[in-house]
Amino acid sequence: MTVPSENPIDLDRSNPEAEIAARATAYRNWGRWGDADVLGTLNFIDANKRVSAASLVSEGRVVSLAQAFDTDGPQRGWRRRTNPVHTMTDTGTDAERGNQGFPHGIGGADDVIAMPLQCSTQWDGLGHIFDHGNAWNGRRAGDVVTSDGDLVTGIEHAAAVVVSRGILLDIGRHLRPDTCELEDGYAITAADLDSCAAAEGLTVERGDIVLVRTGQYARTRRDGWGEYAGGPAPGLSITTAGWLHRTEIAAIATDTWGFEVRPNEFDAPAFQPLHQVVIPNLGLTIGEMWNLEELGEVCAMASRWDFLLSAAPLPITGAVGSPINPVAIL
Amino acid sequence: MTVPSENPIDLDRSNPEAEIAARATAYRNWGRWGDADVLGTLNFIDANKRVSAASLVSEGRVVSLAQAFDTDGPQRGWRRRTNPVHTMTDTGTDAERGNQGFPHGIGGADDVIAMPLQCSTQWDGLGHIFDHGNAWNGRRAGDVVTSDGDLVTGIEHAAAVVVSRGILLDIGRHLRPDTCELEDGYAITAADLDSCAAAEGLTVERGDIVLVRTGQYARTRRDGWGEYAGGPAPGLSITTAGWLHRTEIAAIATDTWGFEVRPNEFDAPAFQPLHQVVIPNLGLTIGEMWNLEELGEVCAMASRWDFLLSAAPLPITGAVGSPINPVAIL
Amino acid sequence: MTVPSENPIDLDRSNPEAEIAARATAYRNWGRWGDADVLGTLNFIDANKRVSAASLVSEGRVVSLAQAFDTDGPQRGWRRRTNPVHTMTDTGTDAERGNQGFPHGIGGADDVIAMPLQCSTQWDGLGHIFDHGNAWNGRRAGDVVTSDGDLVTGIEHAAAVVVSRGILLDIGRHLRPDTCELEDGYAITAADLDSCAAAEGLTVERGDIVLVRTGQYARTRRDGWGEYAGGPAPGLSITTAGWLHRTEIAAIATDTWGFEVRPNEFDAPAFQPLHQVVIPNLGLTIGEMWNLEELGEVCAMASRWDFLLSAAPLPITGAVGSPINPVAIL
Amino acid sequence: MTVPSENPIDLDRSNPEAEIAARATAYRNWGRWGDADVLGTLNFIDANKRVSAASLVSEGRVVSLAQAFDTDGPQRGWRRRTNPVHTMTDTGTDAERGNQGFPHGIGGADDVIAMPLQCSTQWDGLGHIFDHGNAWNGRRAGDVVTSDGDLVTGIEHAAAVVVSRGILLDIGRHLRPDTCELEDGYAITAADLDSCAAAEGLTVERGDIVLVRTGQYARTRRDGWGEYAGGPAPGLSITTAGWLHRTEIAAIATDTWGFEVRPNEFDAPAFQPLHQVVIPNLGLTIGEMWNLEELGEVCAMASRWDFLLSAAPLPITGAVGSPINPVAIL
Repeated sequence: MTVPSENPIDLDRSNPEAEIAARATAYRNWGRWGDADVLGTLNFIDANKRVSAASLVSEGRVVSLAQAFDTDGPQRGWRRRTNPVHTMTDTGTDAERGNQGFPHGIGGADDVIAMPLQCSTQWDGLGHIFDHGNAWNGRRAGDVVTSDGDLVTGIEHAAAVVVSRGILLDIGRHLRPDTCELEDGYAITAADLDSCAAAEGLTVERGDIVLVRTGQYARTRRDGWGEYAGGPAPGLSITTAGWLHRTEIAAIATDTWGFEVRPNEFDAPAFQPLHQVVIPNLGLTIGEMWNLEELGEVCAMASRWDFLLSAAPLPITGAVGSPINPVAIL
Repeated sequence: MTVPSENPIDLDRSNPEAEIAARATAYRNWGRWGDADVLGTLNFIDANKRVSAASLVSEGRVVSLAQAFDTDGPQRGWRRRTNPVHTMTDTGTDAERGNQGFPHGIGGADDVIAMPLQCSTQWDGLGHIFDHGNAWNGRRAGDVVTSDGDLVTGIEHAAAVVVSRGILLDIGRHLRPDTCELEDGYAITAADLDSCAAAEGLTVERGDIVLVRTGQYARTRRDGWGEYAGGPAPGLSITTAGWLHRTEIAAIATDTWGFEVRPNEFDAPAFQPLHQVVIPNLGLTIGEMWNLEELGEVCAMASRWDFLLSAAPLPITGAVGSPINPVAIL
Repeated sequence: MTVPSENPIDLDRSNPEAEIAARATAYRNWGRWGDADVLGTLNFIDANKRVSAASLVSEGRVVSLAQAFDTDGPQRGWRRRTNPVHTMTDTGTDAERGNQGFPHGIGGADDVIAMPLQCSTQWDGLGHIFDHGNAWNGRRAGDVVTSDGDLVTGIEHAAAVVVSRGILLDIGRHLRPDTCELEDGYAITAADLDSCAAAEGLTVERGDIVLVRTGQYARTRRDGWGEYAGGPAPGLSITTAGWLHRTEIAAIATDTWGFEVRPNEFDAPAFQPLHQVVIPNLGLTIGEMWNLEELGEVCAMASRWDFLLSAAPLPITGAVGSPINPVAIL
Repeated sequence: MTVPSENPIDLDRSNPEAEIAARATAYRNWGRWGDADVLGTLNFIDANKRVSAASLVSEGRVVSLAQAFDTDGPQRGWRRRTNPVHTMTDTGTDAERGNQGFPHGIGGADDVIAMPLQCSTQWDGLGHIFDHGNAWNGRRAGDVVTSDGDLVTGIEHAAAVVVSRGILLDIGRHLRPDTCELEDGYAITAADLDSCAAAEGLTVERGDIVLVRTGQYARTRRDGWGEYAGGPAPGLSITTAGWLHRTEIAAIATDTWGFEVRPNEFDAPAFQPLHQVVIPNLGLTIGEMWNLEELGEVCAMASRWDFLLSAAPLPITGAVGSPINPVAIL
């Protein structure tokens, strides 16, 4: 088996099936952590990793990496994804008017939310994407995710796992120092990732959680959502699959809707080909729609790009994704 | 003004109105952090606090303090609170059958959740409880929380705040070494809190996030939910209000539905009187329905009860509570 | 092929598989209305039927046959079925306080609902039940109902169909004149249906919508829901399958959760065997959880048991059921 | 008190406050049906009305007047209104694969919906709109609709009421015989309503349910939703308030989002001024987003514009609106 090229120029843009399959095969981690594994590359985080990540906390500063969860989000209905709908079951207006039926002046407010688990800042679970009917670790998709949810690799299994060193690869700032924003359709390469890390003085290490800032989210804050949810975007090239495998990172997240470059790099129709390679085959946990704006500024100001990252998902039983509020602790 | 007693024996059990008012007045923090404050006691967490909390990470272990978020939870409909309803919009069964309309063998699973924000492990926001029509910092309840949500102190304001030293006061283990479980209706006193801290070798410090384990949740895991959501439970006595104020803790959480003892300590009808004192008057952030079982065992085994606690809420705009997965990092 | 017995005494209680299969085979209507059919026995309603049904309207009285849709319903979480959760997005309290931002004194209230489509008074769609992987008309279940809903026989197809003659077979009143309530576990037979119709002076005719009152719902109004949603109940015997087929009725509905008798009539484990026969094989539309109390009294008082029934489902695209408010117009 | 003009030319376009108030005062029905009334003009429907309406059924034809309830609807998030989100909790794909845990080959599909009650074809309840803090019959808005819903005039009270003679005033066809569509912003006058009725050979009578077809919905079917939900539309002029009062109709519905003309007829900012007059003051039940296309064609073809209309709301306890599938039975 030849190693797939990590240079986009070598891609056969007319043959997504083959290019996907080559990478799926070359970088497949099935069985690497045993047949029963439900964590994939999150296994790369170990105790030492967390201890050394915690030692990075020197300023006592916390930066939230979540976008707002509300009705004004980017979703436009694709595959029934809506923005969160938050409603009140009790309000202060009622409490002040005294109609809640409680004694001695106590009043309360309560609320409810309905939302797709992938509507805003989130982790994709390992059951989110399949490759030819196969889920992570070689299981059949229909044995893993039914209408009852992900019965095997549900996001709840990662509830006590996702704390590690986070590193920010601010590709937008690195490649476009003037605007700090990559243009839609820009395919980030393995070489880009390496040169950015080098410029930041970082070495990407096993168990790292890599945050890739493209700057597209900054653009939406300025110009409106536009087609943020599903339209063109900068993102990782399918040719970075080798880098994602070789570096033994635990997880990766971007400030875009879809992690990988859109439109993708094929002339023939294809859909999220890098997802198809890395989730079911590498077992890589992917985060999307993160807000990396404040973090980008903080890191640039302090010339440091590593921190303790705490980003545990909500343990929603059987979920294939989780809304999160990841925090970088510097 | 006389200082309210911290001994339950001194409570006038026939006069909740007066006992609540005495503590509300004595411990009111309104204006302490300025008129515009939206964080209350979370302000006690500062940068140094977080740096020293991070230095507690010595084992690299993460313990999730969340209960499961699913249909099998304890909610039974009180004030329209249900358990989470998680449904799939795409499944592996469909993907494997090839009916999703994607090319080249990629398939996907997606999901949706509908849930009250207070249905499982959560933080109460400062807009969750009112005292005689007043919300935190002396604002009128109807100016703060309308049908549009909490327009002033929404939980999103705490998105980058709730990381600090956590300490576990395992009162169940401390007072009931045989069973490690307090009985329902047991009112934890300030003296109990102090003696537990002393036994654990801890000093409660400004900015700490205090976790109080009663053991009631362990009982539900063994015996079934019963009336966990709204029935009798061990919890804090209203007389601990002074302790909660004096210690300058940032937040407190329990493994029970309602944080305070139930039934409460009054003969006359009253409802969650300690909530009425501490949320709108002290500005104290309260957590409920935490799972402190594994943490209790880990701490007892290691004879250490402090750790880095990372428990940032989801920034749901205008929410008066947030589902969370708090993690203790030891 | 022998005709299955319509006498429960003849059932082989140890062999549900065979008894179900015998009736599925004997009464299968696949192809009866063409390969493309999406209505099943609703086809029995024709224009003349409706004209004569309308001529039954002599008193100008309308009786609603719906139970209340609210949080206090019978659902307890079986297969994630909850009671409806109704929340407000705008309220009169807010409007009166003037915080809604509208000019000249206009204010508004708005609301939202989240509910299972089978949580209260409903029609089951033809895609609700399958027999050995087959849906109505012999289609494969997986070709009909995916995560995207019922792509073929969705309830929307019946939006302009379900208006016909309704007849009330008040079996509770007929068989138990003292209490007007059948006991849980009572299996209504074809002979019961015929003797009730005869006693009421009715002939069951092609295209009728038959309402069977057991009286169980009256019991819940008096004694509480108990196990109404999924527990023991009076209902139709599996041996009525022949009657349901032979009479060429358009649809049938009961005042119980599950239409058929529960526990069912087999000693070996079985689940809703009559559903398995009649929905996918006969193409029979079934209604459940109807409120037949007022109608029962009105009919008994007037000694008439037929009326115009208007019970069109909400055209929820791809739904396998619909909440309804059926009305009897007398 | 002078009677407000029914000619739009007489409107003081700079003074919505006064024009609204004049009509609210002139046409107020408070107390007309007693202090406890919860039905308003629906009281105009009596038994004789229904008997004669039923006698209109001569063809046995049913026309559904509902739009589709699905994700592809017109809502764009105004006041948190989304399109319906319909998800499956069990599917045929799962059933066919045999993973549902049921014996003997039975399988099932179940589903859930989350939707605003005003998202598609609906009745507005009497608690939907307020005038200067007053609800229907002169009650204070905050006494009627709290976070718990409409405690007084909830839509459930109309569950057995809304069956009467329906008449279609096809204003689009009448005024624009070429296109059958009124242009956005066209204000339908009392004179238009009368001339249309006359042309159709109809007399508008007490207790009628009047359906006004503008043709705007046809435009959306051809051109896409555009701003159907909240943008410009043809609709009733505020000057029709007298007509709506004088004719003693029971209810009225249109094929538009908002019933009245948009933008409204004032130069100063105003919001749904006719709503403000007719819901809280007349007690008029309003329907919106009805699909009157097929009905328009059927009526034009047959040159008859009256029929039995059955349009009972779902009895959602405390709701201020209800999704409906109204049916015209001809």
